[in-house]
Amino acid sequence: MKDFAFHYLDNSATTNVCAQAAAAATAAMTQHFGNPSSLHTLGFEAEQQLLDARKAVAGLLKAKTEEIIFTSGGTEANNLALFGCARAQKRRGQHIITTAVEHPSVAVPLEQLEKEGFTVTRLMPDEHGMITAAQVAEACRTDTVLVSVMLVNNETGARFPIEEMVSAVRRRSPLAKFHTDAVQAAGRLLLSVDKLGVDMLTLSGHKFHAPKGSGALYCRADCRLLPHIVGGGQQQQRRSGTEAMPAWVALGEAVRQLPTPATQNEHYSRLAERLMEKLADLPDVRWHRPATAVPYILHFSVMGLRSETLLHFLAQRQVFVSSGSACAKGKRSPVLTAMGLSERESDSSIRVSLSRYNDENDIDALAEGLFAAVATLQHRR
Amino acid sequence: MKDFAFHYLDNSATTNVCAQAAAAATAAMTQHFGNPSSLHTLGFEAEQQLLDARKAVAGLLKAKTEEIIFTSGGTEANNLALFGCARAQKRRGQHIITTAVEHPSVAVPLEQLEKEGFTVTRLMPDEHGMITAAQVAEACRTDTVLVSVMLVNNETGARFPIEEMVSAVRRRSPLAKFHTDAVQAAGRLLLSVDKLGVDMLTLSGHKFHAPKGSGALYCRADCRLLPHIVGGGQQQQRRSGTEAMPAWVALGEAVRQLPTPATQNEHYSRLAERLMEKLADLPDVRWHRPATAVPYILHFSVMGLRSETLLHFLAQRQVFVSSGSACAKGKRSPVLTAMGLSERESDSSIRVSLSRYNDENDIDALAEGLFAAVATLQHRR
Repeated sequence: MKDFAFHYLDNSATTNVCAQAAAAATAAMTQHFGNPSSLHTLGFEAEQQLLDARKAVAGLLKAKTEEIIFTSGGTEANNLALFGCARAQKRRGQHIITTAVEHPSVAVPLEQLEKEGFTVTRLMPDEHGMITAAQVAEACRTDTVLVSVMLVNNETGARFPIEEMVSAVRRRSPLAKFHTDAVQAAGRLLLSVDKLGVDMLTLSGHKFHAPKGSGALYCRADCRLLPHIVGGGQQQQRRSGTEAMPAWVALGEAVRQLPTPATQNEHYSRLAERLMEKLADLPDVRWHRPATAVPYILHFSVMGLRSETLLHFLAQRQVFVSSGSACAKGKRSPVLTAMGLSERESDSSIRVSLSRYNDENDIDALAEGLFAAVATLQHRR
Repeated sequence: MKDFAFHYLDNSATTNVCAQAAAAATAAMTQHFGNPSSLHTLGFEAEQQLLDARKAVAGLLKAKTEEIIFTSGGTEANNLALFGCARAQKRRGQHIITTAVEHPSVAVPLEQLEKEGFTVTRLMPDEHGMITAAQVAEACRTDTVLVSVMLVNNETGARFPIEEMVSAVRRRSPLAKFHTDAVQAAGRLLLSVDKLGVDMLTLSGHKFHAPKGSGALYCRADCRLLPHIVGGGQQQQRRSGTEAMPAWVALGEAVRQLPTPATQNEHYSRLAERLMEKLADLPDVRWHRPATAVPYILHFSVMGLRSETLLHFLAQRQVFVSSGSACAKGKRSPVLTAMGLSERESDSSIRVSLSRYNDENDIDALAEGLFAAVATLQHRR
């Protein structure tokens, strides 16, 4: 059940909120609207609802309830993880490892930490969009205090080998804490913080049918973190501010509504295969799919069509996709550049990203739109 | 119209979300759920809705649209104002003036800035809970770069003379920027940033029937601010992160639904007078009302009754009030101490805070509850 009739295939940018999560938010807004800090029944009720939401998020990651810190979204969670962990460790060491393909909410805090005296090593992807554990191992130093590598890349869908990277870091950099930005993975893939081995993990609710404005940082109990937003001392001093109950209660409900990762995988794979089959007859399509790409992020170029033109053409047919990352309006993608895409390929690349609300009709509408675009637009070049 | 039947008199802690704002949030969650950064119709539509919300908030403060920065709430807005402005000015001067009665979301960032090398002067209230412009003037230095004084105190309701304070600061500290935490004023009092003369002003949506998780900082166009949350560069680089559309669109709608300040004032004054009249016959009631107190925050002690006991007693009758500030669970109030309240007065003080959803029934239920409490509980001492 969805409340819209268009073909929305831009789910890595954001998703619709599921009906159950929206209903939970509404109840938190108009009926159970207490402040969890209030010392009366309404406050206790709100505190209980917050705990239930925290348990749901902890369950998703196989973490402990008290290891979940709610935030206003993925960006704040990444800021908290990086600033909070690096500054807490500054006296022990000042070397940080990351990749050249992180989201700006990781990349920009690290640039700022560089200005504060930290040294940052940025790993480059190979021509397949991959970054290996060997690269991480080679970058490790004894004064490395923080490693931050995303779990799934938002542009290519590449799933990086975090488990092996963590092992490499544990062997070579005993001081280092490992953070992963799992914004494009959480809610879709089977995740376990223990299996991953990470100390911190970021998730964003609006990527899996919770509201924009909801997110969380998993922070292992023994991982020290300075708070980034300070004040009333909520969330055990780790993130102050009156709790955003509508958003966070909805996040908990959205987690409860998630189909199993296996069910989701089957669904995405079926739709992805259908799209690839349909586009097999379209000339000049080049797929940009690393070997480990997840099935819900599909990146390709329709050569000769500028992505911006194509986006508009498809939007007129009520088909919505993205060109590169929606977070970097107009900037050329560092991932695609690193993968050695030509300017022409890069300029005509589009990203299709799926959710459980998509079905065969959406894929067919997209394929028809692409065929029509080639027929209509390529003549105009 | 409200969705609850109890007597909610704790509106300075948080409020119910009005039906229209909740409906706007729901539409933003399930129908118009685009990411404003997306380069397609859904994204443009979201961007327009965000602009409309920003215009509404700007209108409330008589500010320019581009001077409004949306945040996750009052705490984040205060953090942004204080860290952002102080750090941007650090090379010009390192003296800050504030009061001893600010909310923790102002007080704690200033403690942190002290550790970074700033010197902070904290002004004490007099026995009436007031802080004067003369006190601010006396504290001014040529190297003062920031002054932060709240507009309305959350415990006593005292309205501080910000306009005169700003004048004093302009004369004596030409480098200084003036910030006011208007969380307990915005949405209730007539506010104009030009009449106030401030450079920055914080508001919190959940204090006036918008969702928890919505807030804004007004920052005058010529006031330099370093961002506190960095990443994708949203909101003109001043606050990164995918825009919390449900919360912020609802904030805009809640602003549009506000009765005029005059209408509100008349309503609160009528209810406040009714309560005072009813309690005139209750022995041992001591009012803690500074001369400039707003009519929607009513603070008094029922001598001999511990506030915690009273809160529970009233809650059983579905009447919800607060003891001191809900943000400082269990801590003794610095405001009340400064006002020279005895421990006994302080321990039995309660705060009643009104919204437009309150009516005579709520006041009567509270008064009856208080009489019953005195009859029942005072015997047990």
